[in-house]
Parts: sequence; C-alpha cells; structure tokens
Amino acid sequence: MSTVETRLERDSLGELEVPAEAYWGIHTARARENFTISTTPISQHPDLVRALVTVKDAAAAANGELGLLPAGVTEAIAFACRRVRDGELHDQFCVDVLQGGAGTSTNMNANEVIANAALENLGLPRGRYDVVHPINDVNRSQSTNDVYPTAVKMAVAKGLLRLVPCLEELALAFEERGAAFRSIVKIGRTQLQDAVPMTLGDEFAAFGVAIREDVVRIGDTVPLLLECSLGGTAVGTGVTAPPGYRDVALERLRERSGLPMTPAAHLFEASWDVSALLQSSAVLRRTAIKLSKISSDLRLLASGPQAGLGEIRLPARQAGSSIMPGKVNPVIPEVMNQIAFAVMGADVTIGVAAESGQLQLNAFEPIMAHSLLQSIAWVTNGVSALRRFCVEGIEADETVLARYVASSVGAVTALVPSIGYEAAAHAAQDALRTGIPIADAVSQHTALSREEVAELLAH
Amino acid sequence: MSTVETRLERDSLGELEVPAEAYWGIHTARARENFTISTTPISQHPDLVRALVTVKDAAAAANGELGLLPAGVTEAIAFACRRVRDGELHDQFCVDVLQGGAGTSTNMNANEVIANAALENLGLPRGRYDVVHPINDVNRSQSTNDVYPTAVKMAVAKGLLRLVPCLEELALAFEERGAAFRSIVKIGRTQLQDAVPMTLGDEFAAFGVAIREDVVRIGDTVPLLLECSLGGTAVGTGVTAPPGYRDVALERLRERSGLPMTPAAHLFEASWDVSALLQSSAVLRRTAIKLSKISSDLRLLASGPQAGLGEIRLPARQAGSSIMPGKVNPVIPEVMNQIAFAVMGADVTIGVAAESGQLQLNAFEPIMAHSLLQSIAWVTNGVSALRRFCVEGIEADETVLARYVASSVGAVTALVPSIGYEAAAHAAQDALRTGIPIADAVSQHTALSREEVAELLAH
Amino acid sequence: MSTVETRLERDSLGELEVPAEAYWGIHTARARENFTISTTPISQHPDLVRALVTVKDAAAAANGELGLLPAGVTEAIAFACRRVRDGELHDQFCVDVLQGGAGTSTNMNANEVIANAALENLGLPRGRYDVVHPINDVNRSQSTNDVYPTAVKMAVAKGLLRLVPCLEELALAFEERGAAFRSIVKIGRTQLQDAVPMTLGDEFAAFGVAIREDVVRIGDTVPLLLECSLGGTAVGTGVTAPPGYRDVALERLRERSGLPMTPAAHLFEASWDVSALLQSSAVLRRTAIKLSKISSDLRLLASGPQAGLGEIRLPARQAGSSIMPGKVNPVIPEVMNQIAFAVMGADVTIGVAAESGQLQLNAFEPIMAHSLLQSIAWVTNGVSALRRFCVEGIEADETVLARYVASSVGAVTALVPSIGYEAAAHAAQDALRTGIPIADAVSQHTALSREEVAELLAH
Amino acid sequence: MSTVETRLERDSLGELEVPAEAYWGIHTARARENFTISTTPISQHPDLVRALVTVKDAAAAANGELGLLPAGVTEAIAFACRRVRDGELHDQFCVDVLQGGAGTSTNMNANEVIANAALENLGLPRGRYDVVHPINDVNRSQSTNDVYPTAVKMAVAKGLLRLVPCLEELALAFEERGAAFRSIVKIGRTQLQDAVPMTLGDEFAAFGVAIREDVVRIGDTVPLLLECSLGGTAVGTGVTAPPGYRDVALERLRERSGLPMTPAAHLFEASWDVSALLQSSAVLRRTAIKLSKISSDLRLLASGPQAGLGEIRLPARQAGSSIMPGKVNPVIPEVMNQIAFAVMGADVTIGVAAESGQLQLNAFEPIMAHSLLQSIAWVTNGVSALRRFCVEGIEADETVLARYVASSVGAVTALVPSIGYEAAAHAAQDALRTGIPIADAVSQHTALSREEVAELLAH
Repeated sequence: MSTVETRLERDSLGELEVPAEAYWGIHTARARENFTISTTPISQHPDLVRALVTVKDAAAAANGELGLLPAGVTEAIAFACRRVRDGELHDQFCVDVLQGGAGTSTNMNANEVIANAALENLGLPRGRYDVVHPINDVNRSQSTNDVYPTAVKMAVAKGLLRLVPCLEELALAFEERGAAFRSIVKIGRTQLQDAVPMTLGDEFAAFGVAIREDVVRIGDTVPLLLECSLGGTAVGTGVTAPPGYRDVALERLRERSGLPMTPAAHLFEASWDVSALLQSSAVLRRTAIKLSKISSDLRLLASGPQAGLGEIRLPARQAGSSIMPGKVNPVIPEVMNQIAFAVMGADVTIGVAAESGQLQLNAFEPIMAHSLLQSIAWVTNGVSALRRFCVEGIEADETVLARYVASSVGAVTALVPSIGYEAAAHAAQDALRTGIPIADAVSQHTALSREEVAELLAH
Repeated sequence: MSTVETRLERDSLGELEVPAEAYWGIHTARARENFTISTTPISQHPDLVRALVTVKDAAAAANGELGLLPAGVTEAIAFACRRVRDGELHDQFCVDVLQGGAGTSTNMNANEVIANAALENLGLPRGRYDVVHPINDVNRSQSTNDVYPTAVKMAVAKGLLRLVPCLEELALAFEERGAAFRSIVKIGRTQLQDAVPMTLGDEFAAFGVAIREDVVRIGDTVPLLLECSLGGTAVGTGVTAPPGYRDVALERLRERSGLPMTPAAHLFEASWDVSALLQSSAVLRRTAIKLSKISSDLRLLASGPQAGLGEIRLPARQAGSSIMPGKVNPVIPEVMNQIAFAVMGADVTIGVAAESGQLQLNAFEPIMAHSLLQSIAWVTNGVSALRRFCVEGIEADETVLARYVASSVGAVTALVPSIGYEAAAHAAQDALRTGIPIADAVSQHTALSREEVAELLAH
Repeated sequence: MSTVETRLERDSLGELEVPAEAYWGIHTARARENFTISTTPISQHPDLVRALVTVKDAAAAANGELGLLPAGVTEAIAFACRRVRDGELHDQFCVDVLQGGAGTSTNMNANEVIANAALENLGLPRGRYDVVHPINDVNRSQSTNDVYPTAVKMAVAKGLLRLVPCLEELALAFEERGAAFRSIVKIGRTQLQDAVPMTLGDEFAAFGVAIREDVVRIGDTVPLLLECSLGGTAVGTGVTAPPGYRDVALERLRERSGLPMTPAAHLFEASWDVSALLQSSAVLRRTAIKLSKISSDLRLLASGPQAGLGEIRLPARQAGSSIMPGKVNPVIPEVMNQIAFAVMGADVTIGVAAESGQLQLNAFEPIMAHSLLQSIAWVTNGVSALRRFCVEGIEADETVLARYVASSVGAVTALVPSIGYEAAAHAAQDALRTGIPIADAVSQHTALSREEVAELLAH
Repeated sequence: MSTVETRLERDSLGELEVPAEAYWGIHTARARENFTISTTPISQHPDLVRALVTVKDAAAAANGELGLLPAGVTEAIAFACRRVRDGELHDQFCVDVLQGGAGTSTNMNANEVIANAALENLGLPRGRYDVVHPINDVNRSQSTNDVYPTAVKMAVAKGLLRLVPCLEELALAFEERGAAFRSIVKIGRTQLQDAVPMTLGDEFAAFGVAIREDVVRIGDTVPLLLECSLGGTAVGTGVTAPPGYRDVALERLRERSGLPMTPAAHLFEASWDVSALLQSSAVLRRTAIKLSKISSDLRLLASGPQAGLGEIRLPARQAGSSIMPGKVNPVIPEVMNQIAFAVMGADVTIGVAAESGQLQLNAFEPIMAHSLLQSIAWVTNGVSALRRFCVEGIEADETVLARYVASSVGAVTALVPSIGYEAAAHAAQDALRTGIPIADAVSQHTALSREEVAELLAH
C-alpha cells in the first residue's frame, strides 16, 4: 500500500494523481510512465537544466515587460528559476533523457517545476495553477520548439566553453614536457618504421600544437550555438508571441545567461535546423580523435618495459594486472582512447538523428542533446585525467632513446642530396644487414671518405 | 574535516586509506580516483556484476576441489558471491564503467568485495587478507583477461535472452493487430507513391514476421557468447591455473549460471578475440533498425489528423505540445527511433574498439561492454513501451482507408497482363488528370467495355 | 606470349620490366602489382593528379632557383607538369586509389611520369634517369610525407570550391520557388502531426537559407586545407630540403595553384595531423545530411498522388515502375538521400582512419583522400541534379493545400493567449471529433461569440 | 554535330532518340541523364548483372511454361540471358550504381538489353518491341520490387562464397607460419606491456583460428540471402503474377543459378525487409575488423628494423619511401587496414539506408547493393594480397625474440601460486629497477633459494 500523499492534476487526456510534494505535475507524470528507457533523468545534464530555466526566466521577464504577466507572477517565476540556476530542485527534473516528443516532456517538466516553485514563493500550495499556470504563464509566448533547441544549444555551448580551458591546460602540459625534452634526440617513425632523427621535444610540442588548434575550432563553433530561435514558437511564425517579444526576450536571455546570444537569421529554418549540433559534435569528434591518436602514441612510446619501444615512462597509476605482478599498464591513455570511441559512435547517432528530421521540426533532438552533452562531459573528464594522471608525469628514458639513435640508419637520408637515393639506399641496406655503422657503409658505396661522411651527417 | 573511518591497505604502489566500511579496497580506490569519467558505476549493469561473481564463484569452487583453497575459504567466497547474485552489495561495485586497463579495475573491485564479504561471513573484519586474499585467493588461477571477457559475454547473453520474450510479445501484438485488420483493404505505397491494393492486416502481420526473424538471429548469436576462455589466464597459456582447473571451472560455471557454456576452441585466440561482442552488437543493431523502420511507418500512417495520411490512430499518451492545444504526437515510436539511433552509434563505438585491439588482448573491452549492455537495456525497454503504449492500442480509420482505395488508380496494375503496360499507363494518367474512375479510363484506352474492365479488376 | 615492348628499370629491391611506352616506371609497376584492390586508378580523382603535379612543379621551381637543379631539368619538369595540368597523361596515373604506404606509391607514380615526360620534352627516351631522375630530381627536397598531404588537401579544397557555386544555385532555386509560393498558406507539421498555418513560401525559403549556411561553413573550412607542410619532408625536420626552400616553394605553389596557401604553424605536427581532412569531411556530411533531410521533405510533400500528402508535384523524370503503369517516383530526391548515406559512411571511414594514425605520420591518408574526394564529387553531382531535375520544376497543388488549411484545427493555437490552453485544447478535440469548424468549437468552449473568434483568428 | 545513328523510342513520358546500336532503350536513356552521380555503371558489379539476367531468365521460363509467353520469345530471352551470363554485353548495363528509384532503372536496363538481344537472336532489329517487349514480355509477372532485391542478394551471396576460399587460404597460411614458429618462445604482450611467455607459433595459429571462425559466420549468412521474394511483385500481393508462377520461377532460378534459393516466408515482409543485407554487411565488417586487427599486429611485430619491436620481418614489396633510402614499409597490412576502414564506413551507409526504408519498400537498396558488393570485392582482393604478398613470406627474428624473453620479468607470474602476488610483484619491480635476473630477485623476496626458483620457473 502506497502511503505517498498525492494531489490530483488534469490535462486534456484526463486526470492523474501526482505526489503531493512533487514540484512536477501531470505532464511530467505521464512522461515518466511513457519513457522508462534509459532511467537517466535529464538532471544528469545540469547545464541543460540551467539553460532551460534561464530561457524560461528570460521569457517570463519579456512577458512581464510586455504586460502579459502580472508583476507578481513574473517575479515569482524569476525567483523559481534562480533557485534552479543556483543548483536547487535539480532532482525535480526527472523525465528520461531518452524521450519522444522533441523535448516537449523536458519543457513541460520545467514549466511545472517552475510553476510550483513560483507558487511556493507566493506562499501558495503546489497545483494552484489558477495563479501560476505551467503553460499559460510559464510557457507563455513560447513553444517547446523554440525553447528546447535554444536551451540545448546553450547547454552545449557551456559545455564546450568548459572544455576549452581543460584542453589549454593539457596543451600546456605537453608543451612543458616538450621543453623539458627539447634536446633529447630520437628516431622519428613513419608507418612504424624507423625514419629520421628528430627530438622528443619536437614530438611533445606537436601534441600541444595539435590540441591548441582544436581550441580554435571549438571557438569557431560556439557562435553557431548561440543563434537563437526564441520567439519563433511552434514552426517559426511566432504564433502566440506578441510583437516586441522576440527582441526583449533575447536581450533578457543575454543578460541572464552571460552568453552573447544572437537572433537566428530565419525562424522557419531555425525551427528544424540542427546543424549547429552536428557541427559541435563533429568538432568534438575531431578533438577526441586527436586525443586518441596522441594517447595511442603515448602507449606505443611507453611500451615495454623490456620488450617494447620503452622511450618514455608513464606514471604508474594502479597495479596493472590481477595476475602479473609488477605489471603497470597505460590505463589513463587507454581510457582516453575509449572516450574517443564513444564520441565517434555518438557522432554517428547525432548524424542519423539529424538526417531523420521531418518538415518543420526535428523530433529527435533529445537523443542528440543527450549524446552530445554526455560526450562533452566525458571528453572534459578524460582530458583532465590525461593531464593530471599521465602527461605531467611523463619521463624520458634517455638511454633507450640514445641506443636507437646510435643503431639507426635513418641518418643516411640527410645524405641523399649529396650522394643520391640509390647509393644511400644500398648503404642503408648494408648497414642493416651487417651491423656496420652507417657512415662506414656510405663510404663503401661512394667516393666519400668516412670523415667526409661523418661531417655531412653532423649537419 | 572528514569523519569517515578508514582502514589502511597497501599494494605494489604503496599505501592508501579506504573507508572502513567499504567492501572494496585499495585497487578499487585507485581506480575510482583514476576514472572519474562517466560517473556511472559498473553496478549500472547488474547482469555484469552477477556474471562476474558467478565466474568468481565457479573459479573458487574449482580451486577448492583441486585443493588450492581451504574448504572454509571456498565456502566463504561462495557465500559472498551468492549474496551479490541475490542482489546485495551491488553498490560496492563502484568503479566507473569507463576505465582503462581492459577490465582489471572491474575484476579487482569484484575480488575485493568478495574477499571482504567472505571475511564478514567468517566473522572477521574487512582487510584481513591474510585469511581471504583478493588476489591470491579470490582471483586464484584467474586473470582479468579470462575472467572479464567471460563475464561480459555472459552478461550480454543474459540481456539478449531477456530481450527475446519482449520481442516475441511485440511480434504477437503486431500479429494480433494484423488479424484484426485482416479484411481492411488499403493502398500499398512504394517510394511514398501510391502503389497497389493490399490489406492493412498484411502490413501489420509483416511487422510481426520481421521481428520474429530477429528473434531467430539473436538465438543464433547467444552460443557465440557462451564460448568461454576461462583457464587461459593472461594470454592463453593458462599460467597459474593448475591442471584440471579449466574443466572443473567450466562445469561449475555451467551449474551456477544455468547457461550452456562451452570451452573456447583456441585459448590464445580467445584471449584477444572480441568478435562475439561485435556479432551481438550487429544483431542488436539489425533489430533496432527494423524497429525504427516500423516506428517510422507507424508515424507516417498515423500522420494528420487532417493533413496527413491518417490511416491509423495511435493511442494518445500525453499532451503533444506546450503550445498547440489538442495536438497529440507519436511519442512512443519517436523514442524507439531514437533508441535505434543510439544503438547505431554504439555499434560504431564497438566496431572501432574491436578494431583497436592489439596483440594478446583487446584493452578496450570496457567501452564495448558498457555500450552493448546499455543498448540491450534501452532496446528492451523501448520494445516493451512500444507494445504496451502504442501497438496494442492502434486503431484503423476505415473511412480514410476506403477513400484512398476508391480514388486510387493503382488497381490498374492488375490489368497489365491483359491490356499491356502502355495502355494501362495512359489510362492511369488520364484518370489522375481528369478524376474519372480508372475503369472508365481503361475502357477509353482499350477495346474493353467498362463492364469487362470492372470484371477484370474484381479478380 | 606478350608482345608488349618493355624497358628494364631497377630499384633497391631489384629489377623489373615495364612497358616501353609507359611514362611510369618500376615503383609504379610494383605498386600496381601490390595493390589490385579497388581497380580504380588515382586518375579517377583528376583534382588530386593536378594538385600533385602542381606541387611537384613548385618544388622543382624552388630547387631550380636555389641552384639544386639545372635550368634545363627544371624547365623540362615544369613542361611535364603543365601537360598534366592541361589534362594530358592522366591515364599514366594508374596506381590504385586503395594503397598502403601513406601515398608513397602515388607520389612515386607522379615522380616517374613527370621524369619521363620531362625526358620526352628533352628529346630523350623514357628511363634516361641519369638526366632527369624521378627521385633525385623530381622528388628533390621533398618527401611523400609533405608532398602527398599537401596535394590531397589542395584537391579537397578545389573540390569544395567547385561545390560552393552548385550549392548557391540550388539555394537560389529554392528561394525562387519560395518567392513563387509566397502567398500559399499551408498547415505546418511537427512530428508529422498538423501544427499551425504558415506559407509554402516560408518552407521553401528555409531550404535556401539552410543551404546558404553550409556555403559559409565550407568557406570557413577551405583555409584549413591550405595550410601547407611543404618543406617539412619526412617527419617535419626538413631533412634534405635546403635553407630557403620552404618559402620559395610555397610562393611558387601559390602562383601555380592560384590558391592562397599558407605555411603550417608547426611542421612536426603538420606531418601527422589530418584534422583538416576530418573537418572537411564533417562539413560535407553536414551539408549532405541537410540535403537529405530536404529531399525527404520533398518526397513527403509530394507523396500520393491520391493517398499521400500531395501538396507539391515534382517533375516527372522517368517512368517510375516496371509494373505499375503511370507511377512516377521521386527518383531525384531519392538519389540525394543515398548520396548522403554514402557520405555519412565515408565520414566514419575517414574518422577511423584519422584515429589510426601513429607517431610521425598517418599511413592511412589514401583511403581518406579517396573517400573524401569521391564524396565531394557525388554531392556536387547530386546537388546539380536536384536543382535541374527536381527543384526548379516543383509546382504546388493549391487545391490540396487549401483543403488541409480549411480542415485543420491548428489555427486554434493563435487563441491560446486569449482563451487559455485548456479551453483551446477542448475546442480542438471537439472540432476533430465532430468535424464542426474550429471557430464554432471555440465559441462553445468560451464566452466568445463565433464572430469574435473569427476576428481573433484573422490576425 | 553528332553523327551517332539513333532510333526513336517512347514511354509514358514521351519520346527519345537512343543510339541505334544500343541494346538499352528509352528507360535506360532517361536514367543515364538523371543519374550522373558516381559515373560508375552497374557493370562494375558483374555478379549483379549476372544475377539479374538469371532471375529474368527464370521468370521467362516460368512464364513460358505457364503459357504466358510464346515459346519463341521465351527461347530468345533465354538465349539473351545466357549471353550476358557468359560475359557478353556487360557494357550495355550502363546506368549509374547510384540511382533513385529502388532499382527500377537497373531492372529496366536489364529488360531493355534482354529484349533487344532477344530480338537480335530472332533476326529482328532493335526496338521491335511488338515482338519482344521489355516490360510486357521480359518483365512479365515481375516487378522491380521482387526482381531487384532477389538479384542483389544473389550477387552478395556469390561474392561471399567467393570470399570464403580466399579466407581459408589465408587461414592456412597463418597456420603454416604458426607451425613453422611453433617452438619459438616470445613474450606475450597485453596493453602493449610485457606479459608472460608464449610461442610465436601460438600467436600465428590464433590468427588462423580467428579467420576460420569468420568463414563459419559467413556460411551462416548465405542462406538468409537466398530467401527469395520472387512472385510477390510490387508489394507482396503477387499482382500480375499468375497462379503457379512463384513455384515454377523459383525452381527455374535454382537450376539456372546453382544456388539453393528458398521461398521467403512472408511476401509482404520480404518486399521491404533488407535485413539480410544488413546481416551480410555486419558479418563482412566483423571479418574486416579482424583482418585489420591482425594487420596492425603484423605491423607492430615488424616495427623497426632497429627502433621497433622487430620480432618478425615482412617481405619487402616496394621501396618504402621517396626520401628515406632503404626504408621498407608494411604496405600490404596497411592496405588491409584501409579496406577495413572502408568496410566500417560502408556498414554505416548500409545501416542508415536500411533504417530509412518506408512502408512497402526500401527505396535505397541501390546504395546498399553498391556499398556491399564493393566491400566484398575489396576485402577479397585484400585477403588475397595479404596472403600472397605478406603472410606467406613472414620470417621470425629469433635473436630479437630470445633477447626479449631473457630480459623479461613476466616469467614471475608463474610463481604467484607458490609465493603470492605481493612477493612476486616486489621481485619483478626489483628486477626491472636493478637489472638483476628475475630468479635472483625472487629469492631475495622469498624463502626460496635461487635454485628452487629456477626449478619452479622451468615448469
């Protein structure tokens, strides 16, 4: 027997009891029943919850200024939204991240929580929707179709902006290691085969450069996310939104979010276009792929300790094996690889969802939002772990590095302009086959003395 | 100031305080610090936790029988494993689903929880590893590299076996609707263009057939998951596992799991091969794609109510819009579409992870396990929702269906054998252009009378 | 018995007969034997062939200016490259698009063809490599690892720049249709359910806007492709390239290509970084996905003719069916959908290849180049077909559109600010159930007279 | 001025001149104009062309037996189909592999070529369709919607059946190398870190086992491809096909194809279901991923020659570098990797296309067919190259292998059952840090003498 106290709510489909204490109401209750899919509530994405109430707050402010909401209601809504932005009531945002309906359930959940929190602020019990109504008041001049995409894009922007400094710190860590390894010569490798000498510093500095380029790409992407269709309502006509609403709402959104939101160029297009999410996902994939490539390099360079390349040592983070004593594995780069694999998959999910949009709306934005927000969070966490638990503590094994350089024939490449490709190739093959120093092999295949060869190689 | 009581544990990297009450120990503690990535613990996948302790239990039993563990320790381990299988202590399985190390942290987490639960059973405090040691006893004769893949595959098999009856129920629901719609004639559509008459019953029956075929495909896949590399330990040589262990452990695993586990054909191959996971993911993708196609069909057929196809009505599950009163949207099929998009992405993740395996092990099994187990759960939940909240309540709009049949020229196809393609094509074009009945149009383009045409069409 | 005349060539692996008439030599011959995979030669990508010889030409010019090549040799190489740029000898670029070796075979093929064409220009027989040597002369100061990525990126840039005007023409065609349909009212649809009124002109104008945004995104991407690592040679150290070479070669490349090439910021990073290709692929995917969504919309809106939405008519391009006379299918949008599916797959291929790069080079650039160049060509062809064979000839069926508007209850949304969501919802449900006009239903559920409702709806 | 002689043909859209010599007619001509997308004709897939005419031949035979075609026409059609099966006239199959219309253009192309070849056999000029008509006769009792999917699946089956022996040969080559390397001890590696000893023979034998498992999986898949919907015609009702046709046509198809075709269980489902293609693509992906993993292993093991693992040597197939003399790269495994990346992308393409099917048909089968047939061909060619140009010539570097074994501490794992994990871990760490032999380190950390340790290690 359930002893949870309830209150009765109704919508166009009928009546339903909801827990008396819940800030959410009948629309949320129906969504909770319909969508028991992932069992992950939208509160898992706090950036989305915050963005949503920020949009609602801006809309209410605009409605208030335009005389469509009484001052008391506007203020109560603003107070409720502020509570959520301050981190309260997130547990009330409880519909499943996987939901049909293009975000309507998420929007309705927000409308209901805000309405009841506003009522609480006015000293009224939950459900007194005659005073503050979830739809007529909190959702006034709005549609899920302009509110939800705006909030999703703001949340993605916030997430990307949080990733940026993490990437910069990681780049810095690589650059710092690059500086430390500046004068350590090593054999570069192409196609896993020994190539020509370079420095370990060059290799690590390049990792930093690569990451900084992605920071720029992310920066290019954020403005696309801040194009805002608020005021377009259901399909872009702006039906139910009064004249002047759009500009005021956007201005209030700018103030409350601290983000330089801009008006979408074409409201009908903005109603269905999800390409800012696609672009964000693609840029995140690019970053993740690069981080994965770098992580694989670290694992390769640190392979061994005896039967591998062994050029660098990663910090030991945990015992590597439940059976092999003393084994320490590159677990941090390995998790970065896996994050990238997840991001690559999520990017496909987002692409297919984007392709499946129909007519005036893309009904599949919830899975896009979830996949992208989750991917951003994972990459951010992974980048931080990679820096703190791995990169900053990497050490070079100079003995091993020097041994490879000494035994390598790659230096012969530098002689090609002088002795030609064929002679150089034969010398390299001889050196490899016989084990004689490359300089000796060259002098045997050319008219040059060993000393002349050594001098050429020294440049 | 933290007031959590702690106990001190040590491993080959040093010492660490862990909460005194925790069943997990130092290896888990290190993993928790290293992997704060998804913040989703492995207990999110209860099938995996259960499979893991079942493997541990079987291994301990085998070790006991072979005289490698004292009877008391074996029994205490068995007792601990049973508690977890019964649903207890799952919160102690707390390492992140996203982890480096090929599952070592998951295995270590299990080793530690089982050891401390076994100690508890023996009336001893946590950490008394001199009596029951996480590695020397609980992990005896084992390696993460044989235990973890075995457990992951068992968990996937359990998940698939749970999906099968859900699919069968959904197929039945479609078949039941097919029977109900058996005599309702409709215009079939190819490439979204009107084609030839068929029945709505045929259309729904086909959905049932399609799903039942996937049930067979899933059934084909499960045996691949039950091939077991237990006893191969680290790379397939079986190092640390005594003679006889493999057979006994497998037999005990069969008994405790109720699954018809079989020995892997080649232990070295089984150590790195993840293609049973790939195959499972592919079959799940196939199912999800089919469910998505069917869901899209339902949305198309139910489009409207006035300006769409309007052939069927889906049950109204929630108010469809925060702005458009009375609108009811196909939210349940929409969530099925999104589940499919997620599964398609996860399949890419799993594919890339599989491709990235190196030498004697695939280090990226954790992301494969998480993606696949999550996908199975989502599809299972979606299939149940689709049946209960949508398919079982679908109704036909016979008026609309009949109107389309009456206005269609598709029936002319049946006359092609008699009057030839060209005459039929011209008649169809005339009927569409002028609106005259197709029978009249045919008689104008052929030597047949209207009555003769009508008779031919009636067959 | 083969009667093809041959000449004997040799490399570091030995000797081989090649056809006497072939401009290509032993390296190409070995590659042809090794790579019989796709049987598609690189000449399938003329932009790549042209870019390659343009790079070679620029390098030779720089070598000439720096005194590393005799003037006669430089001129002969320039002449040979010009021939290829003018469209000659493309059939000599015959190695498989699918090749191991990071593009070495492609580069060698170019080296050999250019050397022999240069020899021809000098009046010398093929194979007189003592005068013009494929490697020592044509490849001087270069490595596959700087030449090939530079050429691939230039070719991609050329392809994208060719796509841009095609997209602009398509956008124009949509805008022109949008203008023509400007005053045709229709029922907008969200989630395939009737929503609120808008115009068909808005819908088509939005397609144009969406495409123009992609033109901007492509424009953002091209500069990334023009960052040039020429002069870095094998791994970024510039070994074999003399001082001054890099700047001169880049300047000559700018002149010969007409593209505003810029120097890469960090040559070591540029040696392995393929993220400009990733970014290009992602932007192309974005465009393709959008075109696919639009194509699906066109197919939906044109569905019928009797049992579909039937709002627009696409030009009839071919008989639609081998069995159903008179059927005309939306074959042009359908091919655009399929192009998008191919691009989405190619994007995954490119992502996986990018992720698989190792250390100083990504060995998998050939599949990236092929996938991306092919995708660009397909999208370009598809966009042109979509415009010419479909969009420009689209007509509206105003009768059908007006009928939907008349029967729809979506107009009630406009009354929500006045009468509230609940009353509006009940009125809409009544109207749908009973078939009475929405204005009557509203007046029954509110204090408003039918005339007052009509007036509110008129705004 | 074009001097090509033409003949005039007409269809329901009007008239068109086609080249007088062409076997194809107006439907093909329209398709050629509409689809200039890939510029790859369907003749690129000879298995598809052959399967298509085999289906046509079987259908004509059935029609003949049922009295629907005159004997002379049936024979002429049979003759024409035989010519194509024998390899003639393939150049007449010239519509683009990328086409809208669900394969209609491909089917029409076949109808027209067969009709004109039949006319030729009857001594009549092309275009005498009053005698043999492409649609009324060649396509009699058929629809693209049953003919095309049947042909595509037959072609895929043929391709897979051709791949099987290539895979078996490759497996054999690995097994042969495994046998040759049977007694060469090496250090196994997990997560790129040194693990425990095994043999190089085990490693190579495992590759063979893995490939043989895929042969079984492919064998499981072929029967799904041979389920045949012939006789269902447009949507599964069998409209235009006479009673008895289905059984006779299937029997004739079995005879002419040599494939054990079976009737589809449900014709309505079979009309739209493409999951046999999905399954085939998934199994091919599985094989490709495994081949890629193996290829990556070969590249890793062969890395060096001096600064890499250097355990094996791959045959030198071509000079590896245009700049680095003597460098030989693993180009054959590299091309196998790239084939796998292409297959992984194609699998996504096929998945998205499958998901996009609507109602009674999947209009996107052409891209599925092209992607899958191309993937099969590439994998087949790659497998052959991998065997002939790489695996069969692989040699072990026993010196290097033995050096690693000697220096490794992995052997200590075998002592865990005797001395416990902690003591073993400390010994391993000491040995690595100080370079003393592992046996000495163990005796320092345990009560065991050096001799006792050595004895334990020897087992």
